[in-house]
Amino acid sequence: MTESGKPLKVAVLGCGSVGSQVVRLLEEQAADLTARVGAPVELVGVAVRRLDAAREVEVPEGLLTTDAEGLVARDDVDLVVEVIGGIEPARSLILSALENGASVVTANKALLAEDGPTLFEAAAKAGRDLYYEAAVAGAIPILRPLRESLAGDKVTRVLGIVNGTTNFILDKMDSSGAGFGDALEEAQELGYAEADPTADVEGFDAAAKAAILASLAFHTRVTASDVHREGITEVSAADVASATEMGCVVKLLAICELREQPGGEEAVSVRVHPAMIPRTHPLASVREAYNAVFVESEAAGQLMFYGPGAGGSPTASAVLGDLVTVARNRREGVTGAGESAYADRAVLPMGEARTRYHVAIDVDDRAGVLATVATAFAEHGVSIRTVRQEGRDDDAQLVVVSHEATDAQLRATVEHLQQMDSVREVSSVMRVEGGAE
Amino acid sequence: MTESGKPLKVAVLGCGSVGSQVVRLLEEQAADLTARVGAPVELVGVAVRRLDAAREVEVPEGLLTTDAEGLVARDDVDLVVEVIGGIEPARSLILSALENGASVVTANKALLAEDGPTLFEAAAKAGRDLYYEAAVAGAIPILRPLRESLAGDKVTRVLGIVNGTTNFILDKMDSSGAGFGDALEEAQELGYAEADPTADVEGFDAAAKAAILASLAFHTRVTASDVHREGITEVSAADVASATEMGCVVKLLAICELREQPGGEEAVSVRVHPAMIPRTHPLASVREAYNAVFVESEAAGQLMFYGPGAGGSPTASAVLGDLVTVARNRREGVTGAGESAYADRAVLPMGEARTRYHVAIDVDDRAGVLATVATAFAEHGVSIRTVRQEGRDDDAQLVVVSHEATDAQLRATVEHLQQMDSVREVSSVMRVEGGAE
Repeated sequence: MTESGKPLKVAVLGCGSVGSQVVRLLEEQAADLTARVGAPVELVGVAVRRLDAAREVEVPEGLLTTDAEGLVARDDVDLVVEVIGGIEPARSLILSALENGASVVTANKALLAEDGPTLFEAAAKAGRDLYYEAAVAGAIPILRPLRESLAGDKVTRVLGIVNGTTNFILDKMDSSGAGFGDALEEAQELGYAEADPTADVEGFDAAAKAAILASLAFHTRVTASDVHREGITEVSAADVASATEMGCVVKLLAICELREQPGGEEAVSVRVHPAMIPRTHPLASVREAYNAVFVESEAAGQLMFYGPGAGGSPTASAVLGDLVTVARNRREGVTGAGESAYADRAVLPMGEARTRYHVAIDVDDRAGVLATVATAFAEHGVSIRTVRQEGRDDDAQLVVVSHEATDAQLRATVEHLQQMDSVREVSSVMRVEGGAE
Repeated sequence: MTESGKPLKVAVLGCGSVGSQVVRLLEEQAADLTARVGAPVELVGVAVRRLDAAREVEVPEGLLTTDAEGLVARDDVDLVVEVIGGIEPARSLILSALENGASVVTANKALLAEDGPTLFEAAAKAGRDLYYEAAVAGAIPILRPLRESLAGDKVTRVLGIVNGTTNFILDKMDSSGAGFGDALEEAQELGYAEADPTADVEGFDAAAKAAILASLAFHTRVTASDVHREGITEVSAADVASATEMGCVVKLLAICELREQPGGEEAVSVRVHPAMIPRTHPLASVREAYNAVFVESEAAGQLMFYGPGAGGSPTASAVLGDLVTVARNRREGVTGAGESAYADRAVLPMGEARTRYHVAIDVDDRAGVLATVATAFAEHGVSIRTVRQEGRDDDAQLVVVSHEATDAQLRATVEHLQQMDSVREVSSVMRVEGGAE
């Protein structure tokens, strides 16, 4: 326990875009941090891969080291900030820090989503704090509200735009009519997408965040492998145009839902995929690379948290917020509430996820086709809400919007349609979220 | 200190729309609360004015009492939830509860804004918690993010739509072109405005919330009397139309700003008034009776928190969130971070508030009038950004939008204009917020 007035000693692992901003804020906000923590916060070391790399910030003389293991093993370090990212060596360093009696603040979504329980158990065993607000939606305070503000409420759904790159691309497609390829290229030119954009555009990044959000919202362990994941590479300009026609916009959503099962038990459904949402929905107005998380709960109703989802300085703000909390806990000789997985709900397979669907079908333009298509939907228990037929020379397009159905029902319907003589192609299937059934 | 497993005993003061929902949630979420707190939460008494009043919830036998003083004096009560509202007897009951060793959760914005420091000091002296998330913006978690998530950052501005009644009225005026009177009447019919709407439409409610937000954001004591307050009763259909012409919308804003003073010191400016904001601003899309708080900080950038700002159930959600935090603190034998007023910044008088202005002036339609009007602005140091002249028969209207100037400069300009022969009337003055200067 750090006594009142005794400095809190902080080691930072990584000095990239986030780490350098953490170092900067620790210095610039030193007086405020001291006042808020009740003791000075002292940077005692910064672990980097190469001492001579170019950095956004000047690290004080003597603090840089390439020996991260040695840094976390120092017995005078109270708090380790891990902003290296990735699974290893981040995991070993965090475990080592906790074993050595330091608390940990991390922004590592991939590690938390893959192996969070190992970290939570290590923190509990060591009697130390593990905080990770920065791991989801950058600077937006969302984990603390879920853990604390809504602790007396029952969260029923979380819809998140939690990846700035894909939101930028889809927003660009929506505003300019561009296709995915052109919009991605523009995002890369502007620095919103990486040269290898896979982690973003294929939804891996969003899926990791969905796992973390669902775990906290539903007090259940959810890992990245539990999350059904579809990226945005198949989203076409035609899909975006169809969405506009329906008064909707296409967003890549992380969706975490509590579902009552036939027996009365509650289970959890977690998925990441592009979806249409009504333009009147608060998430629809989240433009460019911004993030937002929309939360529905039993008592509070609908809440939304909006802000920059990435970037060195915003992410560092979230890290510092956690740092102040950990420092206050340490001064009091306590730890914050740890992992809460008491509810231990089942995680549903994707086939049991329920939502609405927008299905575009190219068909022969002849009498009776609409009836056969409608019959296929009905046979698989998918109830049709609206259908629109557009003739085009010798063929036609049917656009069907369904009522809520399971993913399995929808997939069976699509397979059935694809085998019908009068159906040339099921040209697009997109889920519709964020509206009343 | 409540030991692990020992029930946390809760007394609720008031069983109106919020209190009855608190009682309901304590019962319905009992199992989850026990899991999250680590001990059962037990309701031991509900103080009401009349035992036989109609209530939204059935209070368990024997728990109702009209003796609030006696309830808070019981030595087995760990936590008192105060949802009576108003200054007295709420203040005396809260002080008495703290003296008797209970922690307090309150939704009482008026009391906190008028006499917060008395309560904070009593809590600190007693070594007990005082939490009040529900006092600002209902269910929206905004105080905890300001106190904790942004504790390592520097908040520079808070813009809040924190009163649902006025937002409903202004939204109605914007969408239908109605005048203030008609929109108020509709709000009253729909239950969004009270029969005596003064506290809402004159900005008293928003001013109390602004004081609380500014205190937390800037670590400085700000009371309701420090807040410059203007309501929306003077907002006309013409003002709303002018805003639309400028690509803006009129909102009643609670504005809390950090201002660097000529000597380099930082001071605080807090005000509540109607203002035009660009339709592209995230706050512009806050419709109907929803609330939202937009926060700008040095590192995080722009954040927004959105949700229902009032209502029994949403407010009860915020109360329960605080209750869980207090209960966890009690189990650990600690208290949360108390009032933080270390920065002790000066609160600026309204004359020193700086913003931009939209000024409509009815003038004689003759040569040279624009020049004289422009000279008046220049004389008082108010730089003009745009001016638009519209001829109307024998007179004309000038619409001036200024660059940033102080309120004192603007007022001097308006007084000067009113004394000019060629000026018939300064028909409207409205501030313009939420854009880059």
